[in-house]
Amino acid sequence: MTHLQNDRFIKALLKQAVDRTPVWMMRQAGRYLPEYRRVRAQAGSFMNLCTNPELACEVTLQPIDRFGFDAAILFSDILTIPDAMGLGLSFTEGEGPRFAHPITSAADVANLPRPDPNQELGYVMQAVRLIKRELNGRAPLIGFSGSPWTLATYMVEGQSSKNFQKVKSLMFEQPHTAHQLLAKLAQAVTDYLNAQIDAGADAVMIFDTWGGALSHADYLEFSLAYGRQIRSQLKTERNGQTIPCIWFTKGGGLWLEAMADSGFDALGLDWQTDVASARARVGGKVALQGNLDPVSLYAGPDVIRGKVAAILEAYGNGSGHVFNLGHGILPDVNPDHVAAMVNAVQELSPAYHTTG
Amino acid sequence: MTHLQNDRFIKALLKQAVDRTPVWMMRQAGRYLPEYRRVRAQAGSFMNLCTNPELACEVTLQPIDRFGFDAAILFSDILTIPDAMGLGLSFTEGEGPRFAHPITSAADVANLPRPDPNQELGYVMQAVRLIKRELNGRAPLIGFSGSPWTLATYMVEGQSSKNFQKVKSLMFEQPHTAHQLLAKLAQAVTDYLNAQIDAGADAVMIFDTWGGALSHADYLEFSLAYGRQIRSQLKTERNGQTIPCIWFTKGGGLWLEAMADSGFDALGLDWQTDVASARARVGGKVALQGNLDPVSLYAGPDVIRGKVAAILEAYGNGSGHVFNLGHGILPDVNPDHVAAMVNAVQELSPAYHTTG
Repeated sequence: MTHLQNDRFIKALLKQAVDRTPVWMMRQAGRYLPEYRRVRAQAGSFMNLCTNPELACEVTLQPIDRFGFDAAILFSDILTIPDAMGLGLSFTEGEGPRFAHPITSAADVANLPRPDPNQELGYVMQAVRLIKRELNGRAPLIGFSGSPWTLATYMVEGQSSKNFQKVKSLMFEQPHTAHQLLAKLAQAVTDYLNAQIDAGADAVMIFDTWGGALSHADYLEFSLAYGRQIRSQLKTERNGQTIPCIWFTKGGGLWLEAMADSGFDALGLDWQTDVASARARVGGKVALQGNLDPVSLYAGPDVIRGKVAAILEAYGNGSGHVFNLGHGILPDVNPDHVAAMVNAVQELSPAYHTTG
Repeated sequence: MTHLQNDRFIKALLKQAVDRTPVWMMRQAGRYLPEYRRVRAQAGSFMNLCTNPELACEVTLQPIDRFGFDAAILFSDILTIPDAMGLGLSFTEGEGPRFAHPITSAADVANLPRPDPNQELGYVMQAVRLIKRELNGRAPLIGFSGSPWTLATYMVEGQSSKNFQKVKSLMFEQPHTAHQLLAKLAQAVTDYLNAQIDAGADAVMIFDTWGGALSHADYLEFSLAYGRQIRSQLKTERNGQTIPCIWFTKGGGLWLEAMADSGFDALGLDWQTDVASARARVGGKVALQGNLDPVSLYAGPDVIRGKVAAILEAYGNGSGHVFNLGHGILPDVNPDHVAAMVNAVQELSPAYHTTG
């Protein structure tokens, strides 16, 4: 097993002392990078890129090589699990994901298979192993999945949705069937993330992209409860190395207290959530990851540096903060602006870690 | 002046004792009503409907006649002010609003005129006067405007936006120009709402539809500050009748404390915000309006009744709550489901008002 030469990301998630705040970016392997666009064109389609371990490995490493991020994240999509369940995932340019066979009945839910992550999702595990080998300890690797609620939204709507009418109608009118679907997904996510950990992931992150579309009560019952269940069944170490788990509900800033009580090591913060008050509210139970407004990166380096400084100052002294955006980087950002953000974190954050 | 026969909406906003919780709905005059669709077809275009006082009056009254709502809201659009400033508003089917002359420079901002609400927006004041006459005291009339920040997003983007790249870039890179634009809009909104009050509006509501796209610090500086400024310059009574003001930031549940300290009588709540904790957080400073998930209205009457009951129970005893959706009603909801919601509020809420 390769020893991690840079483990400040893992240490920050576990609230252990670090020399500076670690930094990575959601969607850091993405269209804003010319080297990504070249590989993406070579792959032909987004799904071809996801399912080709060599190409997925190549794009995963690109932002590590270019920016020296403190973590790599597996290049994949949150919808690999429903695809492995037979729903037939495809991506249409400019329209996002689409399922050929969405869930339309209780029978569809009952018939959903439990995918074997080393078979139907074997291409992901191959990518994890390959990336780990190529990273060679330069940075930890983050594995990930969509949350059960977020996967369910796409599986029932069949595509991206504005109001979530179909999946919420299922939830409101057939709550038993909705819970059956979410329980199956929680099992599949658990299997999937544990397989990623076995294959070499050093941390895992669960993206609850659409949890913020729910009321507080519905969020607790239909999203967070399944996150907690997954966390309780995830492997927490591999060969003596602790494997932290991050939970990120976009639009969930109102519910941080409940998330902090759900067993996760860290919570992702969107940019709407003030970092200082978030830290006070979670009361030391979890680390925090975030939360620069992704649109900030269109501004010039001086503006970016000022915004990085404000977030570092809002978190304040001590470990437990991973710098990130509050959502994925936008596809037409200038990579030089990303470098300005990384430099600012590297230069300004050591001052907050002098007392360990 | 016509005496209000039903003033429980006004009383609830002022936290005075009422017999039951008042109820109305954002977009209650809208496409879900067959009688609205008939008038809309007759008008030819959405803007024709907005600018025709007789037709605007007719659709404003339709939901009062059908459901007995406790408040009517002026039928209009939040973008009438930028249209009156010369930006050239139009609506394309399925795509939303579009400006022919969006703001693209500091010079555009400097050149923006201050509209006279009784001239360029005289059609709105005519509609207010006509609606008041036709309502004849059956229910109070709500006047409204978009917030300066929300108007600015459309004026700079030129249309609806997902990421608000242009307007946020203005805010980040040219904050002085952004503030100049927002100050001009705050003046125009103040003029506009005061003219609506003069014309007969019994309460006013400011829709900060896109405040929730901002970080906490940006929200305070670029949205809420201008709301506070408007509120301080609004007329608070007409002929001895108090005119309450409601502020609604969609996606702003994290920032209720700051809103409650800004001079408003009431705050709108989106459905993500738990009513019980919102009431505790605002500490009696303001009334609360909301917050049923609009998608709930696709469910059957029993489900709707259960959700109404939960919100009434979450608010608890006493005045200071106006029942509403957490956002506008969706266009394909069955009107019978709206009736189920109204009936549930009327039947279940008196129990919370027995002690005054």
